[in-house]
Amino acid sequence: MPYLKENFGNPSSVHRFGQETRKAIEKAREIVAKFLNASKAEEIVFTSGGTESNNFAIKGVAYANREKGNHLITSSIEHHAVLNVCQYLEKQGHLIGDLPKRQGFTVTYLPVNKYGQVNPLDVEKAIKPETILVTIIHANNEVGTIQPISEIGKLLQGINTQRRAKSQEQIYFHTDAVQTVGKIKVDAQELNVDLLSLSGHKFYGPKGTGVLYIRKGTRLHSLLQGGHHEKNRRAGTENVAGIVGLAKACELAEKEMDREKEKLLYLRAKLENGINKTIPYAHLNGHPQERLPNTVNFSFEALEGESLILSLDFEGIAASTGSACTSGSLEPSHILLAMGIPGEIAQGSIRFSLGRDNTEEDIDYLLEILPKIVERLRSMSPLWEDKIKQSRINTNEKPE
Amino acid sequence: MPYLKENFGNPSSVHRFGQETRKAIEKAREIVAKFLNASKAEEIVFTSGGTESNNFAIKGVAYANREKGNHLITSSIEHHAVLNVCQYLEKQGHLIGDLPKRQGFTVTYLPVNKYGQVNPLDVEKAIKPETILVTIIHANNEVGTIQPISEIGKLLQGINTQRRAKSQEQIYFHTDAVQTVGKIKVDAQELNVDLLSLSGHKFYGPKGTGVLYIRKGTRLHSLLQGGHHEKNRRAGTENVAGIVGLAKACELAEKEMDREKEKLLYLRAKLENGINKTIPYAHLNGHPQERLPNTVNFSFEALEGESLILSLDFEGIAASTGSACTSGSLEPSHILLAMGIPGEIAQGSIRFSLGRDNTEEDIDYLLEILPKIVERLRSMSPLWEDKIKQSRINTNEKPE
Repeated sequence: MPYLKENFGNPSSVHRFGQETRKAIEKAREIVAKFLNASKAEEIVFTSGGTESNNFAIKGVAYANREKGNHLITSSIEHHAVLNVCQYLEKQGHLIGDLPKRQGFTVTYLPVNKYGQVNPLDVEKAIKPETILVTIIHANNEVGTIQPISEIGKLLQGINTQRRAKSQEQIYFHTDAVQTVGKIKVDAQELNVDLLSLSGHKFYGPKGTGVLYIRKGTRLHSLLQGGHHEKNRRAGTENVAGIVGLAKACELAEKEMDREKEKLLYLRAKLENGINKTIPYAHLNGHPQERLPNTVNFSFEALEGESLILSLDFEGIAASTGSACTSGSLEPSHILLAMGIPGEIAQGSIRFSLGRDNTEEDIDYLLEILPKIVERLRSMSPLWEDKIKQSRINTNEKPE
Repeated sequence: MPYLKENFGNPSSVHRFGQETRKAIEKAREIVAKFLNASKAEEIVFTSGGTESNNFAIKGVAYANREKGNHLITSSIEHHAVLNVCQYLEKQGHLIGDLPKRQGFTVTYLPVNKYGQVNPLDVEKAIKPETILVTIIHANNEVGTIQPISEIGKLLQGINTQRRAKSQEQIYFHTDAVQTVGKIKVDAQELNVDLLSLSGHKFYGPKGTGVLYIRKGTRLHSLLQGGHHEKNRRAGTENVAGIVGLAKACELAEKEMDREKEKLLYLRAKLENGINKTIPYAHLNGHPQERLPNTVNFSFEALEGESLILSLDFEGIAASTGSACTSGSLEPSHILLAMGIPGEIAQGSIRFSLGRDNTEEDIDYLLEILPKIVERLRSMSPLWEDKIKQSRINTNEKPE
């Protein structure tokens, strides 16, 4: 609050008003660095959010290393803030430096298993001599499946050791940790990454704040040119209040994470068991264990996720189909499709995100309301009629 | 405040918590559109600040129109958030689309007169068939000189009419209005611009907020790829509280601008007259009339601006040398140099920015303190000794 009111100095100003806010930013940087276990505070660059951090990391490495190679590797279950950046680079094919002929960027989109997990061996197989960046989401935003980032990072470190021996350029490793930071332990060194994106509002910090962790020595271009802010990494007068708020959110998360995780896992199990018991043809999406403690994603056969959301909203329950960032789109989730879930089932999927304020009573209320809504919506659905008929036929054919 | 606390919904969410914040953003967009006299609310895109807006406008037009041409025109007195973007495009020479051979962007940096003003005829002369963008600052950030943006815009409209008749691509016109919005009337239509950048914290809005006005039909790439936010113009969860705060700052500026301008002009005149009366070898920089009402920039011969700032700070007076965004750099201001001020005089320059809270007593206090500090600093300066000797010689030679 003081940085929205009395402490309004520009942190780049030499006078005392500026120096006060400068100190607040540098203190925030220390807090975030410690929280992520960065080796130096200057590896933390403050941005306007997760999307900017992802754009900065991917375009930054792509543009700065364009003369070394033009191949990127990512997964098929990334957030659009990674996926659309990769597609932009493919489509626009920016050329940087003095290359003999026009050649855009190429991207490999790795498959995932039915739980939405990338196989580290698939990363290894996809590497080409011209690979400059691997970017894999830490935990998926729709189903919550946690990826083997540390393993992939280790694998890349081994490959980079070989490359260095042959005087070849290294492959950089980025992870979009927007969904995980504040919910599970995120240790940049343990994860073996060079770049890591996070967003403040995903763990109760202010909207419009984010961080890109940049391991010392990483070669990347700035996304925003201008003044000498953030040690020449990110131009623009700093959002002082936002930065201080983000650091405060890190402190609170550090203190409360273990206890909250335990509570969330209890509520999550209760919700999942309740749904499985009361609603037929409901399928949990994502990895049963290796998953964010707050994420519950179910596909309900023979209904539309969008109608379910609206009915739940009417009862005071806030849920979402897939990502909030793609709402308005009628396409089924690219993430569920990549996991091999058929389009018509993917369209009946919804995500419940549990949080700090949720109680056991909330889960009880949801479990009371949800089966009724699903039943009502299905009773109006021609898909459901087909489903029932099909089920009778199957039962007649193969009685169990 | 409510958008930092109770109304925390993600504006892209379908449920009611999301719809509440969505409404707040769209209301803010209407307010800003009206304030800038945009013809449609959707011409307003919210960003994280002036630097992002400038990067978005310049790279956005450059990349999207690369196949039409590769030449940009700007001035030699731009803020670094424009200057460094232009230099980045020159240096990196991104190539977009299917061009036959490698060719980067080229940039013309127009000169200014001694008041720091661009001549519209110089813009006209600089135009080439491959020109795609002209970007000129609305009022300079260091000396406050206001540029003939409306005239340049009109001139470009004439050229674009001819171009259209020959089925040629148009030249887009951007202005960095970060210094003017909230201080003087800024009417996007009257200025004849296609793109206009502004920053919230420059007129008492929150830091980390900005706007890019994009005239309907302007062809540009997004700077941030990702979700479908801001009608696909700018991905990233919206900084709701910041956006609402920025719109509030517009409303307050609209209401108070005339009265504040009058007060500032009175204080400005008092400060300038006071300095001219009490301090020898002091030169006002910038245009005597066509200048921001809050900006007073003086060069004091034979001293260092940095020492002056520190001495003033000690007395509780906050001033700056040049731009806060370049503090720490020991180079003399590129703006003062472009105006023809010699390097050793430019280094003795400081800027006083008057504001809403300044009173006549503040000016009296400054006028009491400043001459003493200047005298003390000069008494320690070898440059001043030379100056005095030189002055005696001149006086002996040509007595008046």
